[in-house]
Amino acid sequence: MCELLGMSANTPTDLCFSFTGLTRRGGQTGPHKDGWGVAFYEGKGVRCFHESGASASSRIAEVVQTHPIKSEVAICHIRQANVGAVCLANTHPFIREMWGHYWTFAHNGQLEGYLPQSGIFQPVGTTDSEALFCDLMNQVRLDCGPECDLERLTSFLVSRSQAYAQLGVFNLLLSNGDWLFTFCTTKMASITRRAPFGPARLKDADVIVDFEAETTPNDIVSVIVTEPLTSDEQWDLYQPGEWRLWQKGLVIDQGRVPIPEREHPAQA
Amino acid sequence: MCELLGMSANTPTDLCFSFTGLTRRGGQTGPHKDGWGVAFYEGKGVRCFHESGASASSRIAEVVQTHPIKSEVAICHIRQANVGAVCLANTHPFIREMWGHYWTFAHNGQLEGYLPQSGIFQPVGTTDSEALFCDLMNQVRLDCGPECDLERLTSFLVSRSQAYAQLGVFNLLLSNGDWLFTFCTTKMASITRRAPFGPARLKDADVIVDFEAETTPNDIVSVIVTEPLTSDEQWDLYQPGEWRLWQKGLVIDQGRVPIPEREHPAQA
Repeated sequence: MCELLGMSANTPTDLCFSFTGLTRRGGQTGPHKDGWGVAFYEGKGVRCFHESGASASSRIAEVVQTHPIKSEVAICHIRQANVGAVCLANTHPFIREMWGHYWTFAHNGQLEGYLPQSGIFQPVGTTDSEALFCDLMNQVRLDCGPECDLERLTSFLVSRSQAYAQLGVFNLLLSNGDWLFTFCTTKMASITRRAPFGPARLKDADVIVDFEAETTPNDIVSVIVTEPLTSDEQWDLYQPGEWRLWQKGLVIDQGRVPIPEREHPAQA
Repeated sequence: MCELLGMSANTPTDLCFSFTGLTRRGGQTGPHKDGWGVAFYEGKGVRCFHESGASASSRIAEVVQTHPIKSEVAICHIRQANVGAVCLANTHPFIREMWGHYWTFAHNGQLEGYLPQSGIFQPVGTTDSEALFCDLMNQVRLDCGPECDLERLTSFLVSRSQAYAQLGVFNLLLSNGDWLFTFCTTKMASITRRAPFGPARLKDADVIVDFEAETTPNDIVSVIVTEPLTSDEQWDLYQPGEWRLWQKGLVIDQGRVPIPEREHPAQA
């Protein structure tokens, strides 16, 4: 399976600290060594790094850990292969352009008996996650349309997520660079950091950051993950079926829908 | 304007040598300091690096120069901004998924009075190049279709390129990971390296490579550029209106179509 990391901030913020914790789980403190990827939005543009190997031993991941790339929205994924071979085409996050925006998607979980409908957006690789993403994008394109307001789009994303969650585990990060939509079936947690900032210590590496020294008093930075990254902060756990829509570091809409109870698979 | 670099090889090959030469022109030996990007195919997957700053002073470009990323098809671009602000969304190569393949595009030139038709693929940034790419993709999608054979697709790409070249400078690299289509209106040159391999010296950096030590006797690696990168090799210059279709390091189809005579803009 995999782990997810998303960020939403009200000012361009680097992800070095959280990314350092996550990527250790890609072959060092965790088993997710079958690829990693990250998408950083800069305005409407997005830059991505993808590799099909272990993030913990990647020279490129090391650069991303130490070279501050500033973004208001970012999505990361580390993979433990399940459906689909270990290869670049199967590495999240997946990206498509729709309506003049880049949409990015990372997923944790697996659906049973899922048959995507065909449409304009087609998977390049062989993961069920990318097939799901294309299916979701095809439906959003047809059902919502480019003039759709965010409230209606969100409502559609919730209803589709609820439908997918009937078939299995569907922990989701989805963004178009403006907002970050998150949906939890089994595990997700968030933390919002704002003034007064304090220090934080990673669980997976001997790294402490003092956010006070890295921020201004107006900064609001939220991090959303499948497994909390720090050992000395209070993470806000999602409930099964809970969704939150993030923008500029804050939850701007949220809710919870009924989904079947599921145990999360071991090591997922 | 900008410079282009493409590679086609019959075995996964790194681009470190050529990329080192090209990126020096991004703010050191050349004025193309307004962004750089590169797309490396690995099977059907593609990994990209994009930045809106100067490649000559980029830490990430430095990693790409020294960390061997092996690919059979790669496309690079360094930008000197003309139409569109300096920002990530305006940085080539541009990428879209169509028919389950990632298509990548980099362009040198500028068209006058060009009005793209609307379609599924829409530009995210504000360059005329990305608008051109989307226009081309929309037309290929509608006119060729997913079952179109390569000969018919090539013929369509040539006719569209010829039409664009009526409006200005249109030096093009386009790939879907399987083939690399190249079209020249003003400047393009290629070199095919195969056994017996020899040494080569970059024009823009004090770097010599001995390809004999880096290759096997069966390797065939071609590099296509807007300006030759080495000082001691014979580059094969394209004529205005000439196109070449590359696959696995070789030209598999080529031709020339009449286009208006154009001087290449200074510094382009």
